[in-house]
Amino acid sequence: MHGSDFSQHSEISGNEMYRLIEKLYPICRSITGNGVRDSLKAIGELIPIDTHEVKSGTKVFDWTVPKEWNIKDAYIKNGAGEKIIDFKDNNLHVLNYSIPISKKVSNEELKKHLFTLPEHPDWIPYRTSYYNENWGFCMSHNQYATLTDSEYQVVIDSELKDGHLTYGEFYKKGDLEDEILFSCHICHPSLCNDNLSGIALATYLAKFLSNQTTHYSYRFLFIPGTIGSITWLNLNEPKIKHIKGGLVIVCVGDDGQFTYKKSRQGNSEIDRVVLNILENTESSHKVIDFYPYGYDERQYCSPGFNLHVGSLSRTTHGEYPEYHTSADNLSFVKPQNLLESLNKYLLVVDALENNFSYLNMNPKCEPQLGKRGLYGNIGAGDKQPVDTMTLLWVLNLSDGENSLLDISERAGVSFDEVKRAAHALHDSGLLERK
Amino acid sequence: MHGSDFSQHSEISGNEMYRLIEKLYPICRSITGNGVRDSLKAIGELIPIDTHEVKSGTKVFDWTVPKEWNIKDAYIKNGAGEKIIDFKDNNLHVLNYSIPISKKVSNEELKKHLFTLPEHPDWIPYRTSYYNENWGFCMSHNQYATLTDSEYQVVIDSELKDGHLTYGEFYKKGDLEDEILFSCHICHPSLCNDNLSGIALATYLAKFLSNQTTHYSYRFLFIPGTIGSITWLNLNEPKIKHIKGGLVIVCVGDDGQFTYKKSRQGNSEIDRVVLNILENTESSHKVIDFYPYGYDERQYCSPGFNLHVGSLSRTTHGEYPEYHTSADNLSFVKPQNLLESLNKYLLVVDALENNFSYLNMNPKCEPQLGKRGLYGNIGAGDKQPVDTMTLLWVLNLSDGENSLLDISERAGVSFDEVKRAAHALHDSGLLERK
Amino acid sequence: MHGSDFSQHSEISGNEMYRLIEKLYPICRSITGNGVRDSLKAIGELIPIDTHEVKSGTKVFDWTVPKEWNIKDAYIKNGAGEKIIDFKDNNLHVLNYSIPISKKVSNEELKKHLFTLPEHPDWIPYRTSYYNENWGFCMSHNQYATLTDSEYQVVIDSELKDGHLTYGEFYKKGDLEDEILFSCHICHPSLCNDNLSGIALATYLAKFLSNQTTHYSYRFLFIPGTIGSITWLNLNEPKIKHIKGGLVIVCVGDDGQFTYKKSRQGNSEIDRVVLNILENTESSHKVIDFYPYGYDERQYCSPGFNLHVGSLSRTTHGEYPEYHTSADNLSFVKPQNLLESLNKYLLVVDALENNFSYLNMNPKCEPQLGKRGLYGNIGAGDKQPVDTMTLLWVLNLSDGENSLLDISERAGVSFDEVKRAAHALHDSGLLERK
Repeated sequence: MHGSDFSQHSEISGNEMYRLIEKLYPICRSITGNGVRDSLKAIGELIPIDTHEVKSGTKVFDWTVPKEWNIKDAYIKNGAGEKIIDFKDNNLHVLNYSIPISKKVSNEELKKHLFTLPEHPDWIPYRTSYYNENWGFCMSHNQYATLTDSEYQVVIDSELKDGHLTYGEFYKKGDLEDEILFSCHICHPSLCNDNLSGIALATYLAKFLSNQTTHYSYRFLFIPGTIGSITWLNLNEPKIKHIKGGLVIVCVGDDGQFTYKKSRQGNSEIDRVVLNILENTESSHKVIDFYPYGYDERQYCSPGFNLHVGSLSRTTHGEYPEYHTSADNLSFVKPQNLLESLNKYLLVVDALENNFSYLNMNPKCEPQLGKRGLYGNIGAGDKQPVDTMTLLWVLNLSDGENSLLDISERAGVSFDEVKRAAHALHDSGLLERK
Repeated sequence: MHGSDFSQHSEISGNEMYRLIEKLYPICRSITGNGVRDSLKAIGELIPIDTHEVKSGTKVFDWTVPKEWNIKDAYIKNGAGEKIIDFKDNNLHVLNYSIPISKKVSNEELKKHLFTLPEHPDWIPYRTSYYNENWGFCMSHNQYATLTDSEYQVVIDSELKDGHLTYGEFYKKGDLEDEILFSCHICHPSLCNDNLSGIALATYLAKFLSNQTTHYSYRFLFIPGTIGSITWLNLNEPKIKHIKGGLVIVCVGDDGQFTYKKSRQGNSEIDRVVLNILENTESSHKVIDFYPYGYDERQYCSPGFNLHVGSLSRTTHGEYPEYHTSADNLSFVKPQNLLESLNKYLLVVDALENNFSYLNMNPKCEPQLGKRGLYGNIGAGDKQPVDTMTLLWVLNLSDGENSLLDISERAGVSFDEVKRAAHALHDSGLLERK
Repeated sequence: MHGSDFSQHSEISGNEMYRLIEKLYPICRSITGNGVRDSLKAIGELIPIDTHEVKSGTKVFDWTVPKEWNIKDAYIKNGAGEKIIDFKDNNLHVLNYSIPISKKVSNEELKKHLFTLPEHPDWIPYRTSYYNENWGFCMSHNQYATLTDSEYQVVIDSELKDGHLTYGEFYKKGDLEDEILFSCHICHPSLCNDNLSGIALATYLAKFLSNQTTHYSYRFLFIPGTIGSITWLNLNEPKIKHIKGGLVIVCVGDDGQFTYKKSRQGNSEIDRVVLNILENTESSHKVIDFYPYGYDERQYCSPGFNLHVGSLSRTTHGEYPEYHTSADNLSFVKPQNLLESLNKYLLVVDALENNFSYLNMNPKCEPQLGKRGLYGNIGAGDKQPVDTMTLLWVLNLSDGENSLLDISERAGVSFDEVKRAAHALHDSGLLERK
């Protein structure tokens, strides 16, 4: 009669999640192309995802699915014919979505196509040019400082032509058509926190839920940022009404404290659930009001949909210097952090699955808990143990107007403890589900 | 045409209230029995209360009226036959509701039935066992340390058998059936702040109101804690709809600052009135949100009734070390504190009786106060005295939407001053009662 | 299609405003009389105001238009026949509205009619006695200390008889009958900040608006304090329903920070507009909740009208020591301060004229700003310039529920910047006016 308990598990380890990141790290992903396909294939070995292909040129709301981009090789050779930048060393070296090129260029012209980070001279920046045809290279500022030859050979062996946009989807049917959406972007190349960490968490959360009995249905999207969510929303409009809430999963592997960015609506159930969990399980965390920038919550929260989708992350984009650089690498994310993050997501699921309203069957005065073994027998003097107070809170507020989440907020007691009190009272016949 | 003025009185002294406490202090009270009857008789010499007897075994909601408990004597004798603990010295020595016993027990067995306070080795704790048959003694930890004999004789000459639960009730009829409830518990033995202080305040407040003309009716309950309020609520359900608000009177004789525990509803008229008075008359005070523990507000605020009943006390239960110990004695409460507390309750009554909404009869622009003798004649420069500003506030906000309490809150002026301004304007014809 | 832009102008200088103050400073004004007429004539040289005359004795709500007061001369002569106080030196020397007198008085009697400021012994206070017939002189406390003669001659050559109350009005018709009210009091004699500064600002704001195309109509009142607004409201009741908001203009020439006193309603559009502008353009400012004292907002906000009229000033009455003294002179106000104040009022007009709600024509997902030249082409890494974020805010919140003011408040971006973003989106076809 109760919802299932998702607050405890023993089957997922941080190391497993980390191993998926290690496997995906070398692949050069972009918003389209074989890097995405290869990544989805690796995820598909863990959970049965559906892979969708959407043709270039497809109109999706105000946008058009772009040409597909693939790349085999890229390098810069100096005057002596030595490769001084090689895509094979690090796929960040190429401006993502660079058009093919093979020519000799002057020092001056080359530098117009180079991107560096002077403030972090050892790191390679990550840059893209999806919607404006261009070519370029990214490199450390230290290396940039050594470019003194008068001429260089630049080769980018890429292809930009009609093809497909590829995304992955995993759907777990629950008792209800109402569904919870988890979305992560899969378009970044060798960057770990943003967002191989989100991909790994989504994969293992989906794997865990696939074996559970749930009230809600759960949908996981593995999509390229922006154009991917726009495409999915466009192709799946009839399903959108079932989405009761959701989270964008990003940056969940670093050492930082948790951050919750609220949905546009700001006080929806998912917002309250996440805040409740962070307040009750973390000594400090950060809360950000919705703003129309960031990740795919921008699209889910556009006014024509206004979905209740927030984002639960650790350190958010732009707040850590390693963001969008080669320093967001395998040493920047840690198994323990990934597991902690997953556990927060499981508490979210647990709260959503168990957030019912109950009716106190004995609403006039307190019931006599003692005769039901739910109360200490010697009165007065000692403080009641917390759970007795929680029982009294649940009884007092179960008037049909308050969900367990409401009670948790008013009592200042964790959702999990309120849920356990409600279940004990339900088992003793003092509460009924409304 | 105005409500009566209860904010001033000259007939009650703190010493009178203290003398009632002195008289009641030696009596051994419990939730049933002759100690309650004797206490009600003493109160009945001051105000005409009705004493009710409810049979043991009567079902009251989820509870059952317990057997009646009476006690004549109790002691512990050591190996030498000397009384080392004697109920006649202090009735806290017996675990309240102890079953009768008379036997020799080993040192080890005796200690299973002893209660002490190691952190306050001179004090005797107060302990009860109403709903679980048991026997026991309470003593100072210092005395406990001297118990080295191998065997002791324990005698408790008590009686636990079918009888009655006894409570007292005083009702003062006002112009309206709508009533204000004042409730105090009378079940504690020789403990002064908790709650002979509340009994004394309730008695003298009732005595004062019995001679006054009031809009509201007033009900005073002198009841055993928990089972008493449950019993009264069960036997008086048809009357409950008339209760517009109320206060549980406890712990009103100590030196501490005032504390208000809000009703479950939290923003009802009684809540706002009490907070308004404390904010305007005390330099500091404490406010506690409702929580489902404490005194009989737990029952009044159960979801099936949800009465607007809070509790106005000085230091609350558990917040002072003397709570529920022999140190809560006649030197812990003071006449001056009792009188101050009573005066707060009178201000509450005054505000409830006078919290009307008025209509400004001259709502377009200010009326010319000067020609009515209500305004200084020389304009500008000097600050207006407070009462002129209060007159202007009352005029400005008396649009039919604001009660005097609303005006007091918005203007940041005490209810009493707002009331006096309203009466002056009413007398000059500028206001009419809505 | 957009509202006009009032946030920029080049035609008004602080020096011009200051020159009007210089011209008006020597005139002895009161709530009636030729001083008011002369002042309105000077204003009339700059803007075409209508001057109204209302007969003494006219009933206006609870008040009566008083007799008209005029004064030619006044002085005090000492025992040696020397003029020691002369109205011609400073018109503050006479208690405003003094009845005529010409007699010898003892030192003792004279002092009953003298007003000084012991805490500022060099300054002459400003005092009035409009509604209580009296005579008197105001002087520096230093001079008061020298009054040792036994007898003095006092002469006040004034006239108090049936005549008129005079006020000025300027109305600028806009597209709508809905109007914005600006009100300033013109009854103070030689006092600069209170309120020649307000008169000068109102005059030049009216002059500027008279040449503009506006949605709203604008009404400017140049009236004696209290009795003037009461008179206007009484004589113009049918027009009052068109007043959508307004400001009382006072004390706008001193060096202090800006202060906004809210309307009685407190959260009306005018309140939100002024607070928004101060928050976005000032490093610090002061906000005062409405209270029923101060200037003519008292009458506009009386409960029978409850107009949305606040007051935007710099340092408010009573908060600067020079208030209502001879030290509120030509050196206390500065051209630069006057211009800064005027600019705030223009921003208010600009926000009121442009505070529309728009509909996002592409509400499902973000529109592709890049293809419209509204977005940087190279993604990631660099922070978006503020205007792109503002564009996204306007798109995200333009769901028909939010005005530009709502968007400005939620986005934490100035109204002006939100307006410019909305206009750019409107020009590109992405927004339509609701």
